[in-house]
Amino acid sequence: MSKQTPIRADRNQITGRHYTFASRMAKTPKSFIREILKVTANPEIISFAGGLPNPALIDVDGIRKAAATVLEQEGRNVLQYSTTEGYLPLRQFIADRYKKRLGLSVSPEEILITNGSQQCLDLIGKILIDAGDHISIERPGYLGAIQAFSLYEPVFHPIKLHEDGPDPVMLAQVLDTHPVRLFYGVPNSQNPSGITYTGKRRRELASVMRKTTTLFIEDDAYGELNFAGETMPSMREFLPDQTIITGSFSKILAPGMRLGWVVASREIMESIIIAKQASDLHSNYLSQRIAYEYLDQQDIDAHIRKIRTAYKNQCDCMIRMIAETFPESVSYTRPQGGMFVWITLPDGCSSMDVFENALKENVAVLPGSPFYIDGGGMNTMRLNFSNSTDEKIVTGMGRLAKVIRGLCGTSNSANSSKRS
Amino acid sequence: MSKQTPIRADRNQITGRHYTFASRMAKTPKSFIREILKVTANPEIISFAGGLPNPALIDVDGIRKAAATVLEQEGRNVLQYSTTEGYLPLRQFIADRYKKRLGLSVSPEEILITNGSQQCLDLIGKILIDAGDHISIERPGYLGAIQAFSLYEPVFHPIKLHEDGPDPVMLAQVLDTHPVRLFYGVPNSQNPSGITYTGKRRRELASVMRKTTTLFIEDDAYGELNFAGETMPSMREFLPDQTIITGSFSKILAPGMRLGWVVASREIMESIIIAKQASDLHSNYLSQRIAYEYLDQQDIDAHIRKIRTAYKNQCDCMIRMIAETFPESVSYTRPQGGMFVWITLPDGCSSMDVFENALKENVAVLPGSPFYIDGGGMNTMRLNFSNSTDEKIVTGMGRLAKVIRGLCGTSNSANSSKRS
Repeated sequence: MSKQTPIRADRNQITGRHYTFASRMAKTPKSFIREILKVTANPEIISFAGGLPNPALIDVDGIRKAAATVLEQEGRNVLQYSTTEGYLPLRQFIADRYKKRLGLSVSPEEILITNGSQQCLDLIGKILIDAGDHISIERPGYLGAIQAFSLYEPVFHPIKLHEDGPDPVMLAQVLDTHPVRLFYGVPNSQNPSGITYTGKRRRELASVMRKTTTLFIEDDAYGELNFAGETMPSMREFLPDQTIITGSFSKILAPGMRLGWVVASREIMESIIIAKQASDLHSNYLSQRIAYEYLDQQDIDAHIRKIRTAYKNQCDCMIRMIAETFPESVSYTRPQGGMFVWITLPDGCSSMDVFENALKENVAVLPGSPFYIDGGGMNTMRLNFSNSTDEKIVTGMGRLAKVIRGLCGTSNSANSSKRS
Repeated sequence: MSKQTPIRADRNQITGRHYTFASRMAKTPKSFIREILKVTANPEIISFAGGLPNPALIDVDGIRKAAATVLEQEGRNVLQYSTTEGYLPLRQFIADRYKKRLGLSVSPEEILITNGSQQCLDLIGKILIDAGDHISIERPGYLGAIQAFSLYEPVFHPIKLHEDGPDPVMLAQVLDTHPVRLFYGVPNSQNPSGITYTGKRRRELASVMRKTTTLFIEDDAYGELNFAGETMPSMREFLPDQTIITGSFSKILAPGMRLGWVVASREIMESIIIAKQASDLHSNYLSQRIAYEYLDQQDIDAHIRKIRTAYKNQCDCMIRMIAETFPESVSYTRPQGGMFVWITLPDGCSSMDVFENALKENVAVLPGSPFYIDGGGMNTMRLNFSNSTDEKIVTGMGRLAKVIRGLCGTSNSANSSKRS
């Protein structure tokens, strides 16, 4: 959407029987995904709707050993209150890994441990967004970020996402005409689209942003799950003082431990620490200690290679099924990593209709419109490949192809155009 | 403070080098406790400044067994993503315990698991407080609540706390003249004062509030640690639709697991769920499962009795030392439970001076002024007894008495007036 028509929800208050809720509650979308996941909890349904890692790839045995060790050796300590910033050796591990993986210099003082990376988004909204402030986000953009930021009542300026990344001309135009506090993006294997920004595009975006005071919020939940392309530099390399990175152990270790982290310059970190302390004092210390013990004792690189190989196979299987069975008029992305493929149906073909008809065949998909803060995307949908076996992918995609052919066309082979 | 002079921090923004922080950040006090705890991390210091449970009373062995069981039997499940509301059997356990302890009817649907009870305060602020809204809090009031609510930019109306609870006349006056969204209080063994509201006072407060739309936020972190008085009814008994309760496993199980909960009517819970999901999706699922396994297998009542007995002894020891060694002009509370004694020095005697001089003697205390949102309390301080052995209490209080006698008076025996 253009700068002329910023999106702003009504300021109407929700009035309860006895009390009035804060106006921000009227602006926060209920998670459509959450509602869909309730529908698809039935185990007979093959679900491509969620965003769960493959549970078979959680190293339960390694985590069990790590838990036993920390509780045996330091039980009284790991169960007590701890520091707001998080366990220092874990923060040092994360800093060392940035150096090793990306050649990026990060000090442990620039890292704070959060309850999963979703909490990073809440903390960032809390310290940066006043009601009415302008922020930018990819279009389509990650629903969890839309929800987290909406609670701080910003004006959203979505930036069109092309196959090589967000549109730099559109970003320049928005930044030129509004004091934009932050631009939120997922440069590696984006959620929902699966797109990875090219190196060229990263440099172009950095060059646009360098002239401004806008912060780039780099959500890097999927950077370690890059199974097909080269490893890309962090935006912090181009915008060292202007980038906040969010990271997660959910995709490489285990989601149930709720461990993520945020990387920010010391000045910003001071505010994040205050916000974190007011939010919940500190993150689960037992989990932090278990995670560090695991990372110290096990070969995390070998474990991540295993996840990458499995996800590549699952992704290839899904893409093959699309190419062989979907109508030609359907386009789709070819992810280099992450957990999602993004489908664009022909104009006028509704993904909500596909959702409803597929559900009758015991297959669940996620319609794409909730990822468009300004409406639109009615013919798009997100498919998750990480949480299904090849067998389920073949069966489920076969059924889905029939539904789509029935609703959107009759031809048999689809186009691998990345998205218009 | 009176209704004529509401407190409101400057709207000045903090301007960074590259970016502007949200105006709410200028209004949130940095935790003085946090800064003090850094000073007192030196193990040679006897600290009455913090608020830690006694680590010797954490059942490390029981928790280790529970962790081993859930990771062995259901590892892949307990490490996966889970529901926003929290593990249902744990919520059912909490509901059953309200029935058993207090005769209070609560359904599991009215309970959501949080990252410690501090997160309840953040979620409550998020769903209820718009910038400029009026809220009330005890004077002195819990610093963590002042911090959490400050981020939502309310106007605070402190209500004077007497030895039997908050002043109902002052509350009525404030509620009569302002649309007050919530009144936050700690009816059992209040932090910082150690005061427990009497039954009569609870009824008086309820009768004032029943005529309004103001919600009572009942922070009940210490209800289970009642070692000297009778068990008091929850405010929810008197104000069933108008009360939100916050609870915590930190004081009865282990703080490092960061498990608390919030109890609210279904209508309010709908908003809390949306806010929780946007904040961090859900609480640590591994810890929830460990906690439930522990509660299901171990005798939590026996464990809590052990904690109560120990804290009663530690509290008695501290009170005895005050009575025997502090000047007569010093008054203090006699807590029925919890972890704190509240000291009022003679007028003009500064607890900050006591803090500084005591630190030279390797004893740390917590000056009381940060608990007064409107200033004041310069002659008050909070002493924690839960995290010190009798030996340390005798040694530390002896040193503290000398410092106080040097600064505030010379007489040897103090008054047990509860507070003016």
